[in-house]
Amino acid sequence: MAKRHRVAIIGGGFGGLYAAQRLRRADVDVTLIDRRNFHLFQPLLYQVATGGLSPANITAPLRGVLRRQRNTRVMLGEATGFDVERRRVLLRDGEVAYDTLIVATGVVNNYFGNDAWSAHAPGLKTVEDATEIRRRVLGAFEAAERATDSDSVHALLTFAIIGAGPTGVELAGAIAEIARHTLRHDFRRINPEDAQILLLDAADRVLPGYPEDLSQRATESLARLGVRVYTGVWVSEITDDSVYVRHGDVEERIPAHTTLWAAGTAASSLGAALAAATGAETDRMGRLRVGADLTLPGHPEILVIGDLAHVRDEHGAPLTGVAPVAIQQGKYAARLISDRMRGRLTPAFRYVDRGTMATIGRSHAVADLGWIRFSGWLAWVAWLFIHLLYLVEFQNRLLVLVQWAWYYVTWNRAARLITDAPQSEEREGADKAAARETEEAGAYQ
Amino acid sequence: MAKRHRVAIIGGGFGGLYAAQRLRRADVDVTLIDRRNFHLFQPLLYQVATGGLSPANITAPLRGVLRRQRNTRVMLGEATGFDVERRRVLLRDGEVAYDTLIVATGVVNNYFGNDAWSAHAPGLKTVEDATEIRRRVLGAFEAAERATDSDSVHALLTFAIIGAGPTGVELAGAIAEIARHTLRHDFRRINPEDAQILLLDAADRVLPGYPEDLSQRATESLARLGVRVYTGVWVSEITDDSVYVRHGDVEERIPAHTTLWAAGTAASSLGAALAAATGAETDRMGRLRVGADLTLPGHPEILVIGDLAHVRDEHGAPLTGVAPVAIQQGKYAARLISDRMRGRLTPAFRYVDRGTMATIGRSHAVADLGWIRFSGWLAWVAWLFIHLLYLVEFQNRLLVLVQWAWYYVTWNRAARLITDAPQSEEREGADKAAARETEEAGAYQ
Repeated sequence: MAKRHRVAIIGGGFGGLYAAQRLRRADVDVTLIDRRNFHLFQPLLYQVATGGLSPANITAPLRGVLRRQRNTRVMLGEATGFDVERRRVLLRDGEVAYDTLIVATGVVNNYFGNDAWSAHAPGLKTVEDATEIRRRVLGAFEAAERATDSDSVHALLTFAIIGAGPTGVELAGAIAEIARHTLRHDFRRINPEDAQILLLDAADRVLPGYPEDLSQRATESLARLGVRVYTGVWVSEITDDSVYVRHGDVEERIPAHTTLWAAGTAASSLGAALAAATGAETDRMGRLRVGADLTLPGHPEILVIGDLAHVRDEHGAPLTGVAPVAIQQGKYAARLISDRMRGRLTPAFRYVDRGTMATIGRSHAVADLGWIRFSGWLAWVAWLFIHLLYLVEFQNRLLVLVQWAWYYVTWNRAARLITDAPQSEEREGADKAAARETEEAGAYQ
Repeated sequence: MAKRHRVAIIGGGFGGLYAAQRLRRADVDVTLIDRRNFHLFQPLLYQVATGGLSPANITAPLRGVLRRQRNTRVMLGEATGFDVERRRVLLRDGEVAYDTLIVATGVVNNYFGNDAWSAHAPGLKTVEDATEIRRRVLGAFEAAERATDSDSVHALLTFAIIGAGPTGVELAGAIAEIARHTLRHDFRRINPEDAQILLLDAADRVLPGYPEDLSQRATESLARLGVRVYTGVWVSEITDDSVYVRHGDVEERIPAHTTLWAAGTAASSLGAALAAATGAETDRMGRLRVGADLTLPGHPEILVIGDLAHVRDEHGAPLTGVAPVAIQQGKYAARLISDRMRGRLTPAFRYVDRGTMATIGRSHAVADLGWIRFSGWLAWVAWLFIHLLYLVEFQNRLLVLVQWAWYYVTWNRAARLITDAPQSEEREGADKAAARETEEAGAYQ
């Protein structure tokens, strides 16, 4: 029996998982490699960070998702590099041979060279990040209840969110709702409604990637929730109880016990290894520049997809790192491989932009579908519906729906438990190692 | 205004929480102190450890539960000792004054002096214990899939559960179901059905606290699930890949990569501090011997309830550490305090035993209600119903019901994610420090 064509996929996020699933009928052997045993539905991660959902509700075991797909095996392992001559993925403890390789390892938090900030301002990329943020946010209210002087209380009840893209806006909205509603009657000494939620960005408006009128709507919604938005603000330093910002020539210290980082991402560390192994070009975020068919120049057997790939749309603008891009690229990669097996040509990848959305607390979202822009309640319902629809596994949809409905009626966020010790040095180190200069670097220094 | 009578409660488990709730109409100020911000429904913790439920589903934020109870405040803090003269609970960072004190800090895992075992055989007491066990059980299947020699695969697929009380039986049943059903199609090299689940106990039968015929039924159910039960077996050593046991004069090494500890508990460390401060007597598990009204001899202002208290029933047998005992004692403590406020006498505490139950995998449980014993499907439905009923917060009941129903139909356990690093040295140290000689100590040495 002739050996079948071997496809190795690194990363079980949107790109990697959709590629694997689309290869289910292809005459290939697929190996999906991931460090984690689950697919993470990242768009709802902020709800785990704010106690609305449990981690399991937005994850799906990769083996479970792919259990019936007989040509595919899942390997729990950490890829560390490549031997492109021998066509091998190098793992921490072994290697995987491939004929075609799909690299979809995504991005990590990026502190623009200020790696020490990561200890004081966690980002939101992993399940552990989310439970760590939950621990800090809920822990700050607890500490404030026990604090004795008003300055401490003030700093403990100040939450600074750096970066006003969709993640920052969603986090700010959720924390505001926690303070104003969920925890309203929970404390005896402090009034959680005194909490200050600050949203800082170097750009001149929130949701800078969205049309201006939607930014305006989002700003209004945030104001209604009591979030104070500061645009045109550069962060110069973050410590455990303060954020130092520059606004024009004015330097200011903001006492804030809890600071969250939603300001930037950079390519995962495997991106640099792949660039070194193949001589591929990277952009300033460390993402790999790929050809029109998502392969690396000179390496038609290696595809890079998802957040790790630098791809431009038909107007020359780079695609942003959102789930729909990764999903379409994953499907494209599978199609390219299937076409090659049959000796067919595949047209160049083209992203079909069905729009972008962001939600700002209950009953409010903004949506830009290209042909129409809208905001408010209708956008929010659309947001809910689409996110439920794309959740992997039906049971998760049901559990999330129950919790959303419950929250809508009672304002009660059930997953408000403070667990685990602070993030280990080791884990922070790994994030840091991967962070490097990015395109927006100037904005925060 | 005269100062109100101050009640301090340490511990937000069943005893402490029910005491606090029953004091809601009493003319007292209640302070509930806990290290954690949530109440944990311990009877379902094994389902978190085996990927069936999320931690949030079986916890309820203490502040949320008590938010409307205006005479009560919740304090997140760690009690370290007592100043009984000045009537103060000493915290790591402060103190709390009381007129009446209720201590309900429960028990911790007990390794009978072999504290080094805790690293190799985690117990099941906290949410972190449960996610750690989940990590180890799922991680063992993952490692087996990647292992190259058959001896390693065999050891990786061997799960030894030490202690065949209700927790051990429930863990063994759940792990057997995971191997035989949930993971059945998930792997490509190993067959999860090859997993060996061993249940070891020094007693001569499983569920030694139950009537003999129910033990017999439980043994049959375990056999049907493929669990191998070894009774009359003494554990002499546990390492990272083996359990050494003695059975009569025969010494044997069992290669087992995953060992779980369900063999014994001892009083939490605060028990010793309280005994030292009050001169109260402790039993060999470190539990405090209390009077008929659950107060410490010579200290009518200090009550000890729940697992930390040594109380005997009318036949002189000590009450076991189960939720109904703690709940009834919590209610009794509240009644005693209310009665005292009104100058009334309270009759001695008397435990009303409504029975005990244990479940062994799907569709099977054993129940002993005193006036009737039964097992099988009906007992299982009763078990489900009662556990749902006692879950704190209606939303949790709904979420647990959805997940149970889903599991019943599909065998799919949704919360199968491997998160976090191995348990930190620090946390293990804390458990160890509290473990000491107990009544069953001889049995495992």
